[in-house]
Amino acid sequence: MPSTFESIVVVGAGAVGSFYGAVLARAGHRVTLIGRAPHVAAIQQHGLQLHKGGTVERVRLGASTDIGAVRDADLVLFCVKSTDTETVGREIAPHLNADALVMSLQNGVDNAPTLAQLVKGTVVPTVVYVATAMPEPGVVKHFGRGELVIGPLNAVQASDAALLPRLQAVVALFASADVPVKISPDVMAELWSKLMVNCAYNAISGLAQLPYGVMAAQPDVVELQRAVVREVVAVANADGVKLDLDASLQTMERIAATMPAQLSSTAQDMARGKRSEIDHLNGTVARRGVALGVPTPVNQALHALVKLVEAGRK
Amino acid sequence: MPSTFESIVVVGAGAVGSFYGAVLARAGHRVTLIGRAPHVAAIQQHGLQLHKGGTVERVRLGASTDIGAVRDADLVLFCVKSTDTETVGREIAPHLNADALVMSLQNGVDNAPTLAQLVKGTVVPTVVYVATAMPEPGVVKHFGRGELVIGPLNAVQASDAALLPRLQAVVALFASADVPVKISPDVMAELWSKLMVNCAYNAISGLAQLPYGVMAAQPDVVELQRAVVREVVAVANADGVKLDLDASLQTMERIAATMPAQLSSTAQDMARGKRSEIDHLNGTVARRGVALGVPTPVNQALHALVKLVEAGRK
Repeated sequence: MPSTFESIVVVGAGAVGSFYGAVLARAGHRVTLIGRAPHVAAIQQHGLQLHKGGTVERVRLGASTDIGAVRDADLVLFCVKSTDTETVGREIAPHLNADALVMSLQNGVDNAPTLAQLVKGTVVPTVVYVATAMPEPGVVKHFGRGELVIGPLNAVQASDAALLPRLQAVVALFASADVPVKISPDVMAELWSKLMVNCAYNAISGLAQLPYGVMAAQPDVVELQRAVVREVVAVANADGVKLDLDASLQTMERIAATMPAQLSSTAQDMARGKRSEIDHLNGTVARRGVALGVPTPVNQALHALVKLVEAGRK
Repeated sequence: MPSTFESIVVVGAGAVGSFYGAVLARAGHRVTLIGRAPHVAAIQQHGLQLHKGGTVERVRLGASTDIGAVRDADLVLFCVKSTDTETVGREIAPHLNADALVMSLQNGVDNAPTLAQLVKGTVVPTVVYVATAMPEPGVVKHFGRGELVIGPLNAVQASDAALLPRLQAVVALFASADVPVKISPDVMAELWSKLMVNCAYNAISGLAQLPYGVMAAQPDVVELQRAVVREVVAVANADGVKLDLDASLQTMERIAATMPAQLSSTAQDMARGKRSEIDHLNGTVARRGVALGVPTPVNQALHALVKLVEAGRK
């Protein structure tokens, strides 16, 4: 197993993937972004324009629209939207090196497990705490944070002695680009915690097309969000994931206080008529609830309402 | 007690109130509408224009903007929106004859009880099955049906021997205008049944701004509506009202089949930025559920979401 990485390929070069690809390339690593044609063309012509900490830098790195470019990778940063995980997972599977490490830098708790069933490489769930945007092809903006949390996907991985040195290699790699990476035995709990917050904000902000601060000013809405959180925690616990109810409620309520002007990504997708990730947010909780015998009426309601709006736009 | 009615006053002359006022006036009864200034002015100038069964007729009847005009009434048709019941109930109370019969021609199960606490007259819950519209002041259009169901508000009324002849007088009055009125010992169950349907359609159609047919095509949405119905039936039963679950589910699902193009009144209010009746639909179920110890997470969610949209528009 390699203790360092010779070839890093970003699959799904949106804002998050392009950002991490850029900072790794800037630190001297060989990076190829696989993305859409306009983004790839802009990067091939001018390099990737990285706005960060008040400065703008042009970063040279590989870029391709060909999914087969993943064949060189010993490290894959898998950054597609949750709605594309299954399709793109199947596309990369025949090309992927069996020794490759595949980091799933995605929201939701079902992406890494889904991917692990499709590809030969080792899939590492990765929690991403970063604020970025891609205002136009070839340009990525960093607004804050950047740290990652990684860890074993399941009990089998946790008991694999070969995994830890590979995770430590990931920490060293990102450290060379000043990106802090924490190894956690409970990475799935962190993903569930992030899911819990998204379940409590995304659909409601989307249905009402209102920011978090307006939601927090309505006691009935906060009560609804608390009902969402109680259901998510119950499902996570039934799924064997340690998530504390009181801590989760506090975490959830803090979000509106720190980001009152924020519209959820679901709200933005709905406003643009794009397909949202709702199936992988409240939809996941509803599906897992059914499988585990945990009632989730409120998550089911929010999921059904967002799907209805999306169906009505067709 | 009068066995016939000498003076009928409609309080809240919208489409429903103006329609019943018009057909009673046309049948030779003395009717006064209390409504908004433009409507009253149009009626005083030209009479009320009634479109019905393919013909147009000008009906002469009294019209006033003065709430004090209710003082003459021995029969009041109380037709204001649920959101105005308390305010208007307080306004008519000091003028109202203690002998007056007050028919609450309103949706929801809380209007008649609220009104009964505010006025001296006898309040009769009335279920209205009619399709009407008021396209402009002075004009009312009838699209279909018209029948009413009346009955005792509660056990005290049910055991009052004087009530039945008065209800029979109402039947005779409306029969003279070809409006069928049924006396039911279970009028509150019929109001709950109508509330059940409204709870299952209005908020969802409003939040998605989509008609019933699109909702019915989404299995997750139908499942959500069934969850709403289960909660409403549980609350009604806990409230001592006989509502059958299977029959209610069938009634609810039939509505979308018979009115696929229908947008709910809540959807129309939301689209126009008007305050909806949601507090008296899913809001009533949520409040009664709390009082009776019956969980209503889905009705609470729908109520909170519609209130959030309304709050966001302020």
